[in-house]
Amino acid sequence: MTAPGDSVPPLPERARVVNLGLSLFADAVASQGFEVVNVDWRIPAGGDPDVVAALARLYGPKAGVVEAANAEVLRRLDGGVPKATGVRAAAEVVPGFQGTTVLHCGPPIDYADAIDPLRRSMRAAVVAEGWAHDIAGADRLLASGQVGLEPANRHDTCVPMVTAIGPSQPVWIVENAAGGNRAFAPVNQGPGDTAWFGRDTPAAIDRLRFLAAVAAPLLDDAVRSHGPIDVMRIATQGLQMGDDVHIRLQGSTNLMLRDLLPHLAAVDDPRRVDLARFLAGNHLFFLNVAMAAARALTGWAMDVPHSSIVTTMTRNGTEFGVGLAGSPSWHLAPAPAVGQALYYTDYGPEAAAPDVGDSAVLELVGLGAAAAAGSPAVAAFVGGTMADARATTEELDLVCAGRSTRLRMPVLDLRGTPLGVDARRVVELGITPKITTGVLHASTGVGQVGAGVAEAPVTCFVDAVMALDRTLA
Amino acid sequence: MTAPGDSVPPLPERARVVNLGLSLFADAVASQGFEVVNVDWRIPAGGDPDVVAALARLYGPKAGVVEAANAEVLRRLDGGVPKATGVRAAAEVVPGFQGTTVLHCGPPIDYADAIDPLRRSMRAAVVAEGWAHDIAGADRLLASGQVGLEPANRHDTCVPMVTAIGPSQPVWIVENAAGGNRAFAPVNQGPGDTAWFGRDTPAAIDRLRFLAAVAAPLLDDAVRSHGPIDVMRIATQGLQMGDDVHIRLQGSTNLMLRDLLPHLAAVDDPRRVDLARFLAGNHLFFLNVAMAAARALTGWAMDVPHSSIVTTMTRNGTEFGVGLAGSPSWHLAPAPAVGQALYYTDYGPEAAAPDVGDSAVLELVGLGAAAAAGSPAVAAFVGGTMADARATTEELDLVCAGRSTRLRMPVLDLRGTPLGVDARRVVELGITPKITTGVLHASTGVGQVGAGVAEAPVTCFVDAVMALDRTLA
Repeated sequence: MTAPGDSVPPLPERARVVNLGLSLFADAVASQGFEVVNVDWRIPAGGDPDVVAALARLYGPKAGVVEAANAEVLRRLDGGVPKATGVRAAAEVVPGFQGTTVLHCGPPIDYADAIDPLRRSMRAAVVAEGWAHDIAGADRLLASGQVGLEPANRHDTCVPMVTAIGPSQPVWIVENAAGGNRAFAPVNQGPGDTAWFGRDTPAAIDRLRFLAAVAAPLLDDAVRSHGPIDVMRIATQGLQMGDDVHIRLQGSTNLMLRDLLPHLAAVDDPRRVDLARFLAGNHLFFLNVAMAAARALTGWAMDVPHSSIVTTMTRNGTEFGVGLAGSPSWHLAPAPAVGQALYYTDYGPEAAAPDVGDSAVLELVGLGAAAAAGSPAVAAFVGGTMADARATTEELDLVCAGRSTRLRMPVLDLRGTPLGVDARRVVELGITPKITTGVLHASTGVGQVGAGVAEAPVTCFVDAVMALDRTLA
Repeated sequence: MTAPGDSVPPLPERARVVNLGLSLFADAVASQGFEVVNVDWRIPAGGDPDVVAALARLYGPKAGVVEAANAEVLRRLDGGVPKATGVRAAAEVVPGFQGTTVLHCGPPIDYADAIDPLRRSMRAAVVAEGWAHDIAGADRLLASGQVGLEPANRHDTCVPMVTAIGPSQPVWIVENAAGGNRAFAPVNQGPGDTAWFGRDTPAAIDRLRFLAAVAAPLLDDAVRSHGPIDVMRIATQGLQMGDDVHIRLQGSTNLMLRDLLPHLAAVDDPRRVDLARFLAGNHLFFLNVAMAAARALTGWAMDVPHSSIVTTMTRNGTEFGVGLAGSPSWHLAPAPAVGQALYYTDYGPEAAAPDVGDSAVLELVGLGAAAAAGSPAVAAFVGGTMADARATTEELDLVCAGRSTRLRMPVLDLRGTPLGVDARRVVELGITPKITTGVLHASTGVGQVGAGVAEAPVTCFVDAVMALDRTLA
């Protein structure tokens, strides 16, 4: 206190500045050569009073119920041990998959509303099933509704990019003993001229037929000879090898192939050489295995009521859907663009289809963007340096309820990857999960034109939070 | 300058300290809470006047000749593209390998002077060749000199740990087209009960016979069907996957196996299953391939006269040998202990044999300790954190003449690994290369008991520098 008559204290020689919120002010101070600490503060929930009130309840009087549910969800996501046990035709094992139906990525959609690459993939699936002689015939069957459409995710199945599968397509069977549940994903179709990248060429259709006729029975032989494959153990090692286990799977794919090597060599069918050639050329082979495992973990966690943790993120290229554990509802928003992307020569953002596929399930179990920090390959898509990759992981960490105890990142001195996206935090901070993903051409059927990172739209998380608040009222 | 009558300038309010040399003084300042910068300055060459004088000439009037030679050596180490082209019995392809002779690691040595694990490995080789019925018979043949001994390194061949090979043992043929030279390394024997870890058990002998009778012809088939394998390309990718490509080879081994997969599957011999089982269980398989490639690079560089860059580091467990490009001489020192090591349960430093093997050739081409910074596995052996692993690489960087343009480390934002160990710098700074390595039991024949990091002895580098100085006189 300065009493009258006291001498006025001198101004400090050096001032240090702390700035809250808009970084503009901090930048101005820094540009004049002074030290400044910027605090990235934002108005919670964008300042919407209804949303702020719901958050206040979910962090306040309702927090006990939510936190208890979240703890159980985390325990399941972190502790489940999904194992791949075989490869079978989808119709044999996927629950409720019957009739002349195609399972597709993302929320429910009509053929007419689907993006061009997804329509192409559906047509390829219909021809591969033998339901139509050609693409034009497939188009008629799909447009008329004679071939039905179902979201794969409603059948415990996740499919990457614009994958669409008929009943003959082989799927990985992944079993989670702790939860007594199973989940599925098709065998990855490989790079290049393939339907899951939005191609409906003869080669893409041939690939589907090869998977059903050759790859499935021989792989199933090899996997059963090997015994159940602990998928998260391979993913864990993949993280030590630069994989994010979403767009970069070189480490985990090769680990799985080395484990299977003696069993593949022992397959008593000369077509094992065709299978081996396909496997050696498919650096994304482990993607679908990891997705089935992730779906087994989220499928177990979905049974926990009253949680604010996201257990479904699913995109069909037209809509982006989010679901919380304990609720059957999906909250939809228009599909976002893949904002940060690197394109192949001759392509750019104007050629790109929106973000699409069920693979975002990986971001819900501590993989993909959650594991970006350790992946030089992902770094290339998020700014170029390993610091950019770390920032991607750190950002997801801000909105997650926990960290994996098994998926650990060497570059962060073995800290666990962020686990359990808490919709409350997403809405509060306005930070949505980033998703590492491929980019498909929007219209020409040329297939993949790049890869990058998409940001989930915030409105579906807001809807999910408001619904949870109503449920707990 | 303060002239008489000028006012004396005031003492500064804050003093900052720069300390040169002994960190004791810096620590004392820091412990009192003051800022201090410590410069790790040492008396060059330990203060030996003769050595300092030789260094002064090699950095002074003789520097032009030396630098020109070093530039050419670096160009060869960095630019050669060694390719693995096949697997053959050593006697068929290794130059000058004839008669009843065993090739062994390190400098020349008599059987009586060899460490226990190396003697065991030699005995296993002799029995596997069929020259003796049992270990006792092998011992007699070796002790009497009826079986001769030759350093593998004198035959363009590098062998890891205590590997000893007879003429029937298969070797990788690695060709360096740019240099028109070839180099060799035996097929890795795998983990466990094997001779290269100092075992002379029936299982270890069986493994040698399996390699000669089964692995060699089938692998050769597969490699020839695949075509020449660009070894440094695989090593480059391995570095992106956490390998140092010396004690950690999971990434590079799996990449090579995935490339070979279709060719292994196509081998028309049911024993391909035995080979596949051996390969799937051998995470060190790529080690010897990398060593043969490194030896092809250093073998090309050895032809350059007047260089101060090390092109041979070779250890037999009794002596450590160093050679510079352009000189046929090896300068010897007693084998060091593996100073920093992690031991298996029940073992410790008192059980450990000294540092041994030719694998230190990897450290001469930018692999092993040079690539430690990116390897969590190596971090475990050098202090536990990734910062410790980085420090290992940074230290080697201080004594290297250049950096690799192809071996790049993601954790150092893709900086190249240190390349071309300059003996002048080693002697000047008293910093010798660290070598990542396994640790064998000194006497019981139990095999591997740990892994760690050895430091090359400085005296052989001093001898090499003095010899170079004399050559250029």
